[in-house]
Amino acid sequence: MREEISPPKGFRDFPSEDEILRKEIFARIEKVFQKYGFDPIETPIVEKWETLAGKYSEEAENRLIWRFKLPYSDKEFGLRYDLTVPLARFIARFNPKLPFKRYQIGRVFRYEDPQKGRYREFWQCDVDIVGESSPLADAEVINVVVDVFEEFSFKNYTIKINDRRILREIFEKFLGINDYSTILKIYRTIDKLDKIGKEKVLLLLKELNLGEKVLKQIESFIDASKLSNEEIIRYLESFDSNEIKVAVEGLKTILDFSKKRERIRIDLSLVRGLDYYTGMIYEAIVEEPKIGSLSGGGRYDDLIGIFTGNKIPAVGGSIGVERLIDAGLELGIFKKERKTYSKVGIVYTKEVDVKKVWEIADYLRSKEINTFVPFKGYSRILDGIRDLDKRGIKFALIVGRKEMEEGKLTLQNLVTRERFTVELEEIGKIVKG
Amino acid sequence: MREEISPPKGFRDFPSEDEILRKEIFARIEKVFQKYGFDPIETPIVEKWETLAGKYSEEAENRLIWRFKLPYSDKEFGLRYDLTVPLARFIARFNPKLPFKRYQIGRVFRYEDPQKGRYREFWQCDVDIVGESSPLADAEVINVVVDVFEEFSFKNYTIKINDRRILREIFEKFLGINDYSTILKIYRTIDKLDKIGKEKVLLLLKELNLGEKVLKQIESFIDASKLSNEEIIRYLESFDSNEIKVAVEGLKTILDFSKKRERIRIDLSLVRGLDYYTGMIYEAIVEEPKIGSLSGGGRYDDLIGIFTGNKIPAVGGSIGVERLIDAGLELGIFKKERKTYSKVGIVYTKEVDVKKVWEIADYLRSKEINTFVPFKGYSRILDGIRDLDKRGIKFALIVGRKEMEEGKLTLQNLVTRERFTVELEEIGKIVKG
Repeated sequence: MREEISPPKGFRDFPSEDEILRKEIFARIEKVFQKYGFDPIETPIVEKWETLAGKYSEEAENRLIWRFKLPYSDKEFGLRYDLTVPLARFIARFNPKLPFKRYQIGRVFRYEDPQKGRYREFWQCDVDIVGESSPLADAEVINVVVDVFEEFSFKNYTIKINDRRILREIFEKFLGINDYSTILKIYRTIDKLDKIGKEKVLLLLKELNLGEKVLKQIESFIDASKLSNEEIIRYLESFDSNEIKVAVEGLKTILDFSKKRERIRIDLSLVRGLDYYTGMIYEAIVEEPKIGSLSGGGRYDDLIGIFTGNKIPAVGGSIGVERLIDAGLELGIFKKERKTYSKVGIVYTKEVDVKKVWEIADYLRSKEINTFVPFKGYSRILDGIRDLDKRGIKFALIVGRKEMEEGKLTLQNLVTRERFTVELEEIGKIVKG
Repeated sequence: MREEISPPKGFRDFPSEDEILRKEIFARIEKVFQKYGFDPIETPIVEKWETLAGKYSEEAENRLIWRFKLPYSDKEFGLRYDLTVPLARFIARFNPKLPFKRYQIGRVFRYEDPQKGRYREFWQCDVDIVGESSPLADAEVINVVVDVFEEFSFKNYTIKINDRRILREIFEKFLGINDYSTILKIYRTIDKLDKIGKEKVLLLLKELNLGEKVLKQIESFIDASKLSNEEIIRYLESFDSNEIKVAVEGLKTILDFSKKRERIRIDLSLVRGLDYYTGMIYEAIVEEPKIGSLSGGGRYDDLIGIFTGNKIPAVGGSIGVERLIDAGLELGIFKKERKTYSKVGIVYTKEVDVKKVWEIADYLRSKEINTFVPFKGYSRILDGIRDLDKRGIKFALIVGRKEMEEGKLTLQNLVTRERFTVELEEIGKIVKG
């Protein structure tokens, strides 16, 4: 019997050389989060269906959430679709001291059509600030994202920002479209701008029967996204709307408090797909190297209230690391350099007492040196060196007949090919240096 | 609308003070794994149902696996029940250089009745050695487990070991029970020995209609588990069976190569529930502090062959950290000492320029000092100090009117209550020291 060896479609295995790199990338992102005073929490992979229902979008709810019943339960469950709705539930449950700043790095699940860079199980790295309505919190989230980009030395990136309140006001008040589902459809269509271009967006909008005048206005609105930040701000300040004024003040604060003001671009065509956003929204794109959209998020001042019963403002950002890692590997920014955490491997021949070899390994391990010991002696030292080399282990500690007779050890650096005659106690200094 | 705020039954949220402790415990376990030359891999949470089916036990398959279909798919899936079957699939898929030593720390899912220390989602920390049939590999797994116990300074622990081949030979050859399902039932009954005691085990065995003579032999066999290692080995060596001889040699090697021989006890009544074990099995119990069973595993030489088509021996061990953490907290071995990774919090009053505060924070963060900045100035310095204190932040950097006027900063250690007048550049030295 030979069984199917692939994971389900859209799911992945990570061999050690991938996993070691991924762990390093996660650790670097985590360090940025911690620098800003965010602390970790964890929530389950499985949530009650009721927790997830009605929070995302119709499309998510009807096609994308991993939703199921078990044979032994009449309850409905879902695998978490993001880390934000679980956070909102968490806040209601634990009522932490506000403002509450948490980060979370973990898997989320979407029933997507798998394609390059898009999976059914993928990792999000999220920071959120709960209980703070000041645009300073928005600015902090943006700065964390900037710092992550700087951490990986990206040269050319843009953080597009917008505000849902601007969109809502312009559509409702100035275009007279009060039907939320139509507004959502318009949002979703505009959201495709980057992917399908302006002409196709206008064609799709036409199908919504909005009328010639409204269409023209949306077009000019889309065109406004080409303007400079200062021009857009002036354009927005011309609207007689308190909501828009507040939103514009927020955008100005974000620009003012940003670590990299020149990287931030107000983009009125940015809408983002999830229903729960209420204020500032952003999306971050890395143009050099060409990686694409790496991070998105925004303000969701109503989501937590669904769970707590009273309104608690919140803002957050999510870094999708799959594209960072996939594209980074392809572009050579990241290399699968380490196949192993082992620093030393012991090469010994068949005539050497295995007990002695284990004692040497124990000593090295007690000195915090990760040590790989083959379970059998090699026929020839060279076989052992080749084996360790293939495993990516940098140092071979050779224990052959000669070494046993002379009571000395040989340490070989498998990269430089240098050999040293060493005492056991000296090894730490050499392999760590 | 106020929604239900609990995760599903048997699932847990981890607030920062739990999560920080958990991360530390995982990191310490991981370090032990790495010392022995194990490297990480990752596999999906979701597996195809076919991958999981038939690998564990009837009970697992029919009652315990999180098995489901989605509304949009006719395929059956399961959440991973352990990390071992996914490893076997992984080996078949990637065909890595053998012996292959991997560790994996991750969640697994079982539809259990939740109770203290037993959850529907919990974490396993596994090491496995694939492609090595030598009992030295078994010994290495046991030594890793020993080192984890030593890492946490457990004083009194026992590693019970047995071998499935001994059980099979004695039941099949010497008791004449060839029906595998009866043998499994006997195993499962004996497996309850620790929980329900010998009398009840004998009563349950009676229900299997094994006959008086067989029952007597099983009883004497159970009684043999009280003997010393040396006596049991002599008892086993009296059987005329090659299988038993090989198994006994293995147990002797494990004792011989163990770092803590005095902690290892051969226990013939140990059976372990999963179907895939074929050789050495072990279970590790911590008696002081009274934590109970913390680790189990064994040899599974046939499992990987189901996926690869050819036999590849393997042995592994799993540390269930839930009990370690739950009991450890209760017993005071672990403390939720850290609520936050933030080292410094900035206390500033309303008249201080927030821009200036953010500059200070940026400087500290650039020096790798995790810094928490409130989004609003406090009315009084004392309010800020109280706030940071509640958040568990050790150092308050005070930027009040006085500090702004004099161009100096005040740093207060919130534990010792000491105050220092400092230059920005000196802070790193103080908070790190």
